Amino acid sequence: MAKFEHLRHKPPTELLCPREIVLVVAPLRSNVNLSRMVRLAGCCGIRDIMHCGSGKVDREIARDAIDYVHIHTPRSLIPVLQKLRGEGYRCVGLEQTTNAQLLYDYHFARRTALVIGSERQGLTADVLQHLDDVIEIPVYGPPASYNVVTATTMAVYEYCKQFPSG
Amino acid sequence: MAKFEHLRHKPPTELLCPREIVLVVAPLRSNVNLSRMVRLAGCCGIRDIMHCGSGKVDREIARDAIDYVHIHTPRSLIPVLQKLRGEGYRCVGLEQTTNAQLLYDYHFARRTALVIGSERQGLTADVLQHLDDVIEIPVYGPPASYNVVTATTMAVYEYCKQFPSG
Repeated sequence: MAKFEHLRHKPPTELLCPREIVLVVAPLRSNVNLSRMVRLAGCCGIRDIMHCGSGKVDREIARDAIDYVHIHTPRSLIPVLQKLRGEGYRCVGLEQTTNAQLLYDYHFARRTALVIGSERQGLTADVLQHLDDVIEIPVYGPPASYNVVTATTMAVYEYCKQFPSG
Repeated sequence: MAKFEHLRHKPPTELLCPREIVLVVAPLRSNVNLSRMVRLAGCCGIRDIMHCGSGKVDREIARDAIDYVHIHTPRSLIPVLQKLRGEGYRCVGLEQTTNAQLLYDYHFARRTALVIGSERQGLTADVLQHLDDVIEIPVYGPPASYNVVTATTMAVYEYCKQFPSG
């Protein structure tokens, strides 16, 4: 018998409790990036994205995640962070800043609002002041800047690794 | 003084020795996926991609990584794996199979050939028989299947975390 046999289209891993990570996203310029983020969220069992923008999700990219992930569209980001903090969420930005912690070593709180900047600007200075922590992902070569969804993928992966059953 | 101040466009982290991970990629249908993979490789300090296909890399997507990452275009995948194994690489596929190990727990060899399937098919049964290990990433919700670059991003992130200086 072959050592490795395909098990494709295996059902998803069941979460023992619902994911308590929420993605809070500054206005993205690209609907492709937004749609890819929705697919990522779906695959990782994340139900809520707060996107402060008017992007349209492309079903071709997001696939069935489009019906699973709720996309909320608040007008601005800071009141969302204040509300989530009131509900016990730790507000954690993904950015290169002073006092940032390496994603490699970071221990996520179960209740995490992962705050993602836009493609060009990243997180604005005023949003940074409303964060509890900033996490940074090392880059090792050109173009020395991850695509916004690539960086989000790494952070969400690390969160799921720390909470493999929700 | 503000707790978090931007440090954008910070220079990349220096590698103490060159990365010894190579991406070995079945023919991708989408040039966008190929180009995103090149950008990911560049940002992670990975110099070599073996892509058994004829895709064209889009500079708008791959950015400066296009001049940093060498894209080799062998005619088929199995001889590449045999050659790399002869040079001391461990051939590790990303797939859902019997006897797969969870990426969460997997210890990478420094010399790793990360073997990635195409968008539709994943890794074919004949390629699977030439692998040393298969690693699997849990999915938790719809569409229950990561985009090929998203899955590669998670595996490459885990490798870089294990070898933060190369």
